[in-house]
Amino acid sequence: MHLRFRDSHISLAHGNGGRLMRELIEELFAPALKNPHLDTRADAVALPIEANRELLVTTDGFTVQPLEFPGGNIGSLAVHGTVNDLAVSGAEPRFMTLSIFLEEGLEIVRLRRVIAALADAARDSGIAVVAGDTKVVGRGDCDGIYLAATGIGFRPRGVRLGLDHVRAGDRLLVSGPIGEHGAAVLLARQEFGLRGDLKSDAASVWPQARALMAVAGLRFMRDPTRGGLATVAHELARATQLSVHLSEQAIPISDPVLSVCELLGFDPLYLACEGRLVAVVAAEAAEGALGALREVAPEAMLIGEMRQAPPQVVLATAFGGLRALDELEDDPLPRIC
Amino acid sequence: MHLRFRDSHISLAHGNGGRLMRELIEELFAPALKNPHLDTRADAVALPIEANRELLVTTDGFTVQPLEFPGGNIGSLAVHGTVNDLAVSGAEPRFMTLSIFLEEGLEIVRLRRVIAALADAARDSGIAVVAGDTKVVGRGDCDGIYLAATGIGFRPRGVRLGLDHVRAGDRLLVSGPIGEHGAAVLLARQEFGLRGDLKSDAASVWPQARALMAVAGLRFMRDPTRGGLATVAHELARATQLSVHLSEQAIPISDPVLSVCELLGFDPLYLACEGRLVAVVAAEAAEGALGALREVAPEAMLIGEMRQAPPQVVLATAFGGLRALDELEDDPLPRIC
Repeated sequence: MHLRFRDSHISLAHGNGGRLMRELIEELFAPALKNPHLDTRADAVALPIEANRELLVTTDGFTVQPLEFPGGNIGSLAVHGTVNDLAVSGAEPRFMTLSIFLEEGLEIVRLRRVIAALADAARDSGIAVVAGDTKVVGRGDCDGIYLAATGIGFRPRGVRLGLDHVRAGDRLLVSGPIGEHGAAVLLARQEFGLRGDLKSDAASVWPQARALMAVAGLRFMRDPTRGGLATVAHELARATQLSVHLSEQAIPISDPVLSVCELLGFDPLYLACEGRLVAVVAAEAAEGALGALREVAPEAMLIGEMRQAPPQVVLATAFGGLRALDELEDDPLPRIC
Repeated sequence: MHLRFRDSHISLAHGNGGRLMRELIEELFAPALKNPHLDTRADAVALPIEANRELLVTTDGFTVQPLEFPGGNIGSLAVHGTVNDLAVSGAEPRFMTLSIFLEEGLEIVRLRRVIAALADAARDSGIAVVAGDTKVVGRGDCDGIYLAATGIGFRPRGVRLGLDHVRAGDRLLVSGPIGEHGAAVLLARQEFGLRGDLKSDAASVWPQARALMAVAGLRFMRDPTRGGLATVAHELARATQLSVHLSEQAIPISDPVLSVCELLGFDPLYLACEGRLVAVVAAEAAEGALGALREVAPEAMLIGEMRQAPPQVVLATAFGGLRALDELEDDPLPRIC
């Protein structure tokens, strides 16, 4: 099937509802994304309901620049971002929809790589693309490809997770080294004349989330994407009106990320991850949760705790000092996801 | 609440996950879209399942240019487009997600109008925006606002609708005059130095779809958006391998649409509607279906039939001739939805 689609570049007619658009969908998108629920001729598709589980839904837009980076591209990122929002909510990712914005003139070989990576990531993550839409805008009216994805998952009834469940004394965990997605995208831009072997951490966190859900005392999970770990900590502080106390020495950061940050003046605590989760657990459950998490994420760490103190984010530095982490204001890294 | 958001233009920081983005969401989007299911702090939201109904899902991107046109804007259009894809599938529209792409420099007053129209259309259509995402791209990297929406609806079990159910002898109906959305957007561009009082027909077709679902013999419904009525007819011909026979005299087209098309050389049969539906019904049900449809859409007409003949779309002209309608090839009207 793949070989049938012969156009070399996207034209406005690939978005007009006519023959070229039909060929793009039937000959490029549909074969790559094939699954029993996808029907490219239907306005809407029917999905199976699981009566004793809750239906969860999430949505995300993707505008990462460059479109391709070490460790992934905008297609695989759209899957991982969508899967992870469901996973940290305690829902098994099952279905997703995909809205595609294409720029006139985009090379089809590039689009093919993006869709192939998206299809692979979806297959590996156990999520099926069940509906899609394609729009083409004129040259210069978008930056190659933007994607919007909506994820649907199912969660066992009775799972209680959320910011409202977090209490003073609870502990924070992170599932692995932070900032690798942000640093990899940064390097891929080559704006800084740097090249490294740094790869994005983009991946499904559903295995980690599922492992933690077996632990009594799990309160809250989140994937630290835009704004990084520091931004998740600020959300926690604001929602709970407690202080978030982080230990700098405990936070895993790889040497390449540290080097890039030092060189360019970025703080890794604000860099996006796309394959990590932050969890809050009751103090008495912390060691059990860490053990469960390390079964699937060996580099997981306990990194801090919630304290009964005015809402702020405090970092205990490696030198024994305390540093208040500000909420992100200006945007050091636009177009990261 | 509305008055709290004081920024005048969108900046990259409105998309970075930090303070400005939080304010945009909490102070502009959330108050406008408020409903019991929306939780702007959550990664994913839980939705009620209706056990004896089917879950239907659809997705669409919106890039209409200009962003505002007589009869609507990109916000209300996103609601109507989403609602209508569910409606023509026989599902009651209930929930939607919204992914927003904003261009740096966009005026907030403009964004406010778009979101207000979106909120009004959602309220009028009985659909709740339950989850959202915002991305900001640099100046020149998108055309003001793009939206992607995913709709979720519920359909009674046992409804059988679709291209597979269409048979030779079946009749075609349209719920009202065609091409008004396309013509209105065309005029709003002012590329042609024309102004008219033509308004987009954009609206929910759920009342019409519901009326038809009460009729035994309903086979298929579709909203004729990109590519218009002619494109829906081509989809029917291709899927059924039958000929679609349309009667030019029976197809309702308003005088202003005819004038615009004559002047500019467009064919109204290919112009988008955003508030009409095309239905296929068994021959013996045709009069009953027309009666039911006219209760809610007084200008509905029987416009043609499916014939046992090689797959093509044939128009019986007002002068007694027959004209084969081609499948849309080039794009006369990009960025119509």
